[in-house]
Amino acid sequence: MENFTYSWKTEIIFGKGAESRVGDETKKYGKKVLLHYGKESIKKSGLYDKIVASLKDAGIEFIELAGVVPNPRIELVREGIEICRKENIDFILAVGGGSVIDSAKAISLGVHYGEDVWDFFEKKIPAKKVLPVGVVLTIPAAGSEASYATVITNGNEKLSYYTKLIKPRFAIMNPELTMTLPNFQTACGIADMIAHIVERYFTNTQNVDLTDKLCEATIRSIVKNAKLVLEQPNNYDYRGEIMWASTVAHQGFLGAGREEDWASHKIEHELSAYYNITHGAGLATIVPAWMKHVYKHDEKRFEQFAKEVFGKDSALEGITALEHFFKEIGLPTRLNELNIGEEKLELMANAAVRGDHLGNFVKLKSEDILEIYKLAL
Amino acid sequence: MENFTYSWKTEIIFGKGAESRVGDETKKYGKKVLLHYGKESIKKSGLYDKIVASLKDAGIEFIELAGVVPNPRIELVREGIEICRKENIDFILAVGGGSVIDSAKAISLGVHYGEDVWDFFEKKIPAKKVLPVGVVLTIPAAGSEASYATVITNGNEKLSYYTKLIKPRFAIMNPELTMTLPNFQTACGIADMIAHIVERYFTNTQNVDLTDKLCEATIRSIVKNAKLVLEQPNNYDYRGEIMWASTVAHQGFLGAGREEDWASHKIEHELSAYYNITHGAGLATIVPAWMKHVYKHDEKRFEQFAKEVFGKDSALEGITALEHFFKEIGLPTRLNELNIGEEKLELMANAAVRGDHLGNFVKLKSEDILEIYKLAL
Repeated sequence: MENFTYSWKTEIIFGKGAESRVGDETKKYGKKVLLHYGKESIKKSGLYDKIVASLKDAGIEFIELAGVVPNPRIELVREGIEICRKENIDFILAVGGGSVIDSAKAISLGVHYGEDVWDFFEKKIPAKKVLPVGVVLTIPAAGSEASYATVITNGNEKLSYYTKLIKPRFAIMNPELTMTLPNFQTACGIADMIAHIVERYFTNTQNVDLTDKLCEATIRSIVKNAKLVLEQPNNYDYRGEIMWASTVAHQGFLGAGREEDWASHKIEHELSAYYNITHGAGLATIVPAWMKHVYKHDEKRFEQFAKEVFGKDSALEGITALEHFFKEIGLPTRLNELNIGEEKLELMANAAVRGDHLGNFVKLKSEDILEIYKLAL
Repeated sequence: MENFTYSWKTEIIFGKGAESRVGDETKKYGKKVLLHYGKESIKKSGLYDKIVASLKDAGIEFIELAGVVPNPRIELVREGIEICRKENIDFILAVGGGSVIDSAKAISLGVHYGEDVWDFFEKKIPAKKVLPVGVVLTIPAAGSEASYATVITNGNEKLSYYTKLIKPRFAIMNPELTMTLPNFQTACGIADMIAHIVERYFTNTQNVDLTDKLCEATIRSIVKNAKLVLEQPNNYDYRGEIMWASTVAHQGFLGAGREEDWASHKIEHELSAYYNITHGAGLATIVPAWMKHVYKHDEKRFEQFAKEVFGKDSALEGITALEHFFKEIGLPTRLNELNIGEEKLELMANAAVRGDHLGNFVKLKSEDILEIYKLAL
């Protein structure tokens, strides 16, 4: 095990009707709120009205900024920063999934920073003072509700930034709010959460028995409940298992004391940046391809994955089982299913590597990444 | 799953040499510290000198209060409160295991309270203002380093108190510091951490698949590494697995969304109060006896425990496997091994029940508790 520091920080408020507490929770941190969300869907579902009522009951003023899109854009982040400065906003409330939360986190980074917020993503400058962020989660997938990451797209660049300062102060999680998600989007979220665990599970750190077992347990629970929730999208219990698993998968707990990889995510980010595809769908093609490219580096670890997660006997059977699972829940496992051909593979492979190499489990060069894209074709 | 709120709060600083950070961590919260510990063993091991040096480097004043005993006593807590008031202490640093940490938490409760600190334990009055507590952990067992519980003994009463306010601000955890523990004490700690998971695992809450699997994974890892660490007490990796598992077991994460039981702990607390035995040794006798008494209430759940933790086919085989494991690591599994006879069983059964019933999985009356004691004879 490696040395580590760890704490969870984000207060989770989980369960039926949890969204009614948003006003009281927000009041702990701010008086004037930027209410940040995506589309009109939160109005159709009635969630918007509930949140507005709860904020008003708590005596909180708010200004709205809607329009966050999947693979959230820097332009809206900049707009949010301007609003926060002009209106003296002291708290950002993100209502939505990972894109909305990431956009909110990026705004929170920029408000007290004198230059352009993209500097954080491009130059990795240290964050100093941020606005606090709270979350009402509607899509279980990205784990952003309790993570210290944000991923923003600027033209063809999709880059991440990490700082503990942007961990949300609270995350309100009511599984009922996820019942209207289309199956494809639920499945994309499931691929994302599995990928978050895979990035931590495949490590060169030795003697990580407890976290190995916790990772395997979480993936097994996701696999089991994924099939159930897609058959019964209105089942509260299955929705609850998947929602809690999405947070557990990415909160940091499963990676304590482990070197993490993160190559697959960055290889996928290029796909999302160039083709604007859903992150989870891209991951369902990239993660198995990455596995096929790297498994010989530590075949024993892949055998353990195969056995403990899928009850299979060999590394390759485990990878096939994961691929089969993605297919079973309706996800693409090949790039052509996403209408992606060979045209930009080399361009993306060069863009993904950024610096000397990508990933830690196996340090990938651009030619490795190209090979992974080709394996996913 | 039940509705729940959750956050971890305590900052974990885990790994080799972590104790050298104690001064810097303490400085974040206080300037004048009560350095609270048990026996001279931390002086013999050199830990005391390292901590004193680190505190001095950070410019922190401190006053010592040693003498915490297993099943920590209210008298020393009261003494600590007096010192804190008189000396204007603003932070309590606990160096030791669960007893020292629980004693520190109890002191932290009492300093700003006008009446006797035992009121918290006896009358369950709400805590308002506490002193912050930090921990350098030397015994992995109680999980008190990141929990919101404290258990204190007053005469023949051993009572617990819970409030999020007393969660330690940080816990410094270096597995090297646990290498000198005698095997019996290591084993007692292992029984304690398994019991912490058992109290959460056996629940009437339905549809708790993810937390079930996380509980099973953690117990399996403890069982595996327990045997290894007792064979190789100086192995850093095995010590590390056990140390991290002790925190995970009791931090609250494994119980999120579940009704918890806590009967076994309270049945054991009477043993510790009347016979001053080690808590973990008492639990090794009580937990299997409790299981035998209640398993028919939900035999399916006990079958799942048997299968997933020990690879056994029936509820009773699972219970026997746990009992066998406790024996294997050198723990008593019968009260006579602790020189406890029938004399006080009825007295303790009546004392344990406190109010209408004890526990949640099965609501135990005093006659059930007496039956459990007898099963442990």
